[in-house]
Amino acid sequence: MTDQHIQSAFDRDLEEIQADIMKMGGLVEDAIRKGVESLLTRNEEIAEEVRKNDARIDSLAEQINESAARVIALRAPTAVDLRLILSVIKISNNLERIGDYAKNIAKRTTVLAHMRPIDENIGALRRMASLVQSMLKDALDSYVQRDVEISENIIAVDQDVDQMYNSLFREYLTFMMEDPRNISACMHLHFIAKNLERMGDHITSISEQVVYLVTGERPDENRPKADTISLENHPQLNETSPPKSLGT
Amino acid sequence: MTDQHIQSAFDRDLEEIQADIMKMGGLVEDAIRKGVESLLTRNEEIAEEVRKNDARIDSLAEQINESAARVIALRAPTAVDLRLILSVIKISNNLERIGDYAKNIAKRTTVLAHMRPIDENIGALRRMASLVQSMLKDALDSYVQRDVEISENIIAVDQDVDQMYNSLFREYLTFMMEDPRNISACMHLHFIAKNLERMGDHITSISEQVVYLVTGERPDENRPKADTISLENHPQLNETSPPKSLGT
Repeated sequence: MTDQHIQSAFDRDLEEIQADIMKMGGLVEDAIRKGVESLLTRNEEIAEEVRKNDARIDSLAEQINESAARVIALRAPTAVDLRLILSVIKISNNLERIGDYAKNIAKRTTVLAHMRPIDENIGALRRMASLVQSMLKDALDSYVQRDVEISENIIAVDQDVDQMYNSLFREYLTFMMEDPRNISACMHLHFIAKNLERMGDHITSISEQVVYLVTGERPDENRPKADTISLENHPQLNETSPPKSLGT
Repeated sequence: MTDQHIQSAFDRDLEEIQADIMKMGGLVEDAIRKGVESLLTRNEEIAEEVRKNDARIDSLAEQINESAARVIALRAPTAVDLRLILSVIKISNNLERIGDYAKNIAKRTTVLAHMRPIDENIGALRRMASLVQSMLKDALDSYVQRDVEISENIIAVDQDVDQMYNSLFREYLTFMMEDPRNISACMHLHFIAKNLERMGDHITSISEQVVYLVTGERPDENRPKADTISLENHPQLNETSPPKSLGT
């Protein structure tokens, strides 16, 4: 962006705010990593740390929104620059929500640590979390670089996250049906998988912002979504329903 | 607000945007009402209508954010006015998310309509939805009137919503344990209850904004939360855990 024209006061302001976005992104990445680590190792101390750190993410979001508003008030940006600065508010909002989901994983970890462990496929949750983390890192890099190609790739990869969620959903259902004593733990694990799936949606939303900023066009609203499982009648688990989305 | 000083251009702009907020609020109230109605009457047509109407809510949110940014750019508001205009962006974001939850209820309705009905306590979901609807109406009224008392009352009432969610959670768990064929439907019903509970959180957030706008102080961060159930070890259902919150 800055190589397209001589750097203006607005550009400098925007870059400062974007630096805060990257800082916030780092904290959120950390929250996801530690949230999932606390779950996998049943470590309540790390979970507690994630819960506490969320306040820092929230206050950074607040700060970014106020800086953005100050820049708008001070610079009275043109339509294109206004779009840029509004994207900052949206992205900080996405990051804040991803942080909330990480905090929720940490909270459920604290609960699960006191429950009888079930023989669930913990590797699948780990893989899902890793994918979400790398998506977030790429999304923030491509935002700063205004890279449409990477952004479109992230939007496509989100389908893998949706499919991973679908598999886990089926798996937890079977665990619940096998033994009612698994129901409570599986409800929490299912919520954790759902949290990761929702993180993917917010990362996708960041990438869609990048595409919009660069091309001026919204990515296809009807992009394929792979979160189909919830529309099937699970107890049979063999019914073939038409693929539909159940995302919000 | 407008009786405190002669109405300025900024005040007129703000009032126009607030009118859009009220319009958006009306659409969201409608979405909740119809979403729950479609669930209770197993009416897929109404559910489809709710899903379609969500696009109007989303585009109104977009429009409000852009208007707010234009006003900031045009009027270069003072710190206090800036806080007012930023609250518009936050509240439209809260409303958009409540609309998303209503849409999700409608989507799950479409699924549940094809499942074997279970003997769940549909009255409880109806009561919970009614409470959420009246909270939303009060929250929007108290926002326009800058009424701290009503706002604080809403923040307190949200605890009832949390308690209703807790009761439903327990109820669905017992249904699942009684008969594994209930698991799939109960997962959807549980998500619907969770959606209503999350709506309550967003309405509370609107009320907290009002308190902040009027008093300049954030409501107590450590307000009591009644979403305690998820931290207990449900299968026993008789364990007494210390009340903690599991909200994001």
